[in-house]
Amino acid sequence: MKLATAQIGGRTFIGLIMEENKILDIQRAEKKWFDMESAPQSMIECIEMGEKFFNHLKQLQMYVKKADETESFLYSLTDVTWLPPIASPRKNIFCVGKNYREHAIELGSEADIPEHVMLFSKVPTAVTGHGQKIDPHLHLTSELDYEGELAVIIGKKGKRIPEAEAMDYVYGYTVLNDITARDLQSRHKQFLLGKSLDTSCPMGPYIVHKSAVPDPYALSLVTKVNGEVRQEGHTKDMIFSIENVISTISQGTTLEPGDIIATGTPAGVGKGFKPPKYLSPGDTVEISIEGIGTLSNTIAE
Amino acid sequence: MKLATAQIGGRTFIGLIMEENKILDIQRAEKKWFDMESAPQSMIECIEMGEKFFNHLKQLQMYVKKADETESFLYSLTDVTWLPPIASPRKNIFCVGKNYREHAIELGSEADIPEHVMLFSKVPTAVTGHGQKIDPHLHLTSELDYEGELAVIIGKKGKRIPEAEAMDYVYGYTVLNDITARDLQSRHKQFLLGKSLDTSCPMGPYIVHKSAVPDPYALSLVTKVNGEVRQEGHTKDMIFSIENVISTISQGTTLEPGDIIATGTPAGVGKGFKPPKYLSPGDTVEISIEGIGTLSNTIAE
Repeated sequence: MKLATAQIGGRTFIGLIMEENKILDIQRAEKKWFDMESAPQSMIECIEMGEKFFNHLKQLQMYVKKADETESFLYSLTDVTWLPPIASPRKNIFCVGKNYREHAIELGSEADIPEHVMLFSKVPTAVTGHGQKIDPHLHLTSELDYEGELAVIIGKKGKRIPEAEAMDYVYGYTVLNDITARDLQSRHKQFLLGKSLDTSCPMGPYIVHKSAVPDPYALSLVTKVNGEVRQEGHTKDMIFSIENVISTISQGTTLEPGDIIATGTPAGVGKGFKPPKYLSPGDTVEISIEGIGTLSNTIAE
Repeated sequence: MKLATAQIGGRTFIGLIMEENKILDIQRAEKKWFDMESAPQSMIECIEMGEKFFNHLKQLQMYVKKADETESFLYSLTDVTWLPPIASPRKNIFCVGKNYREHAIELGSEADIPEHVMLFSKVPTAVTGHGQKIDPHLHLTSELDYEGELAVIIGKKGKRIPEAEAMDYVYGYTVLNDITARDLQSRHKQFLLGKSLDTSCPMGPYIVHKSAVPDPYALSLVTKVNGEVRQEGHTKDMIFSIENVISTISQGTTLEPGDIIATGTPAGVGKGFKPPKYLSPGDTVEISIEGIGTLSNTIAE
């Protein structure tokens, strides 16, 4: 089950990815098949519906398979504009820093490998969708960098979640590019500012429900810039597991449906090269995570 | 003009602080005097209305001064429950770190005085109102600390705001307690986790509109714990001015109405004493900022 927030002809809709590169406008399909519109307008509300929404979609999928391909509520993936799957996150995105050994080392040394989960955040105004342009903010930074990451979407509210139960709180996964202005990141010490430029948080194209991801630690991650492979990582190499991160945050901080946790980036970021390979206007960054999708964005010229 | 979000008899309302320690339920007063309810339900929406809402309130104030004191929409301040003036912030609270010289030194040395604005954040789920209990999270921290701060409420959307125009983007001010778990703050390197425990962001009691604050750098700030003075600061001692902080953030990050920026704490936090004076269950923290108000909260037992 893959869910997206997309736009076509001025209409924003929650979409279900179907076979043969199609996306279904869930509300419109409901209207046709059940003469009702029970699906909410926002992804967060869909997630909050939990199992009910999931089962409803399975039923809808069955009906739509019989549908006439020319029905107006079924669009080609190439015809829609992608918004971030969660278009308006209701808090900053939680981000795990230095969660892959080789990445911690490339930014410093062995001494930078964290002993405890390192957490910072990106503002919600930074999110943007698959295929959208990234503003290079040339007036502000000359060290714009990419970081390909697996992001976890939280499915239900929880506090003091034990590691053994943490996966019950996961709704699904998506791809996230933790775009970072390295000069701002180091100048301002705490990471918030260098991580929060407008359009510096591309996400998507869609959320893959956890039922379709049997093992989140069995996924390769590849980042390419203009086709050149820069990051070749694997989620098995995370230092702090998803369960550990969820449990650690929630010991004192309530997690809510729709919360987003970016789980850190493997080695191969621009700053890790000698000389560094930062992003320039016109560059295209493509992040592919096995079974989760490919997120592609171009730096605006 | 002072605005609060408050509760009475199960009803949550946006309230206008009146003379003689009264608070007016704006929507209900409108209904009575103008037979209409144009005021929005949330403080963020009120702020977004800008001048229109402000002028409307001035008119309402005039009418209400003639009102019968027994009218049900005018309550005693001691009868209401205070919510944070912005009850559900739509992103993390921006916080300036080490923005007073003596505070930077008490946590380390002269070398800790920042050359550039240091920014971190607190999650929106951490906010709580004046008079509400603070959860000590005894299972998680033994170093719970207070930080009295002047918080700025942003009034309108902006990007790349020049310092000279920054005050146009301020809506008003409130008092904020940047409760911090010092052990978590240092263990996790980046500040997010140690600053984001549930109930670790008391705010209020109300927002004072900027028209009532001719000079935000002429305000004394006093924090008391169980009546003992701990912080005696003054906003003239900020290293980075409000204008500088707004301009710095907005160079790459769009600011929005209702955004909250905590401007940093002066010397005298618990960690700065030898031995440290951390908070314990039953302690009451009271932060008074001249002309802005007094925020008081007790640590739950």
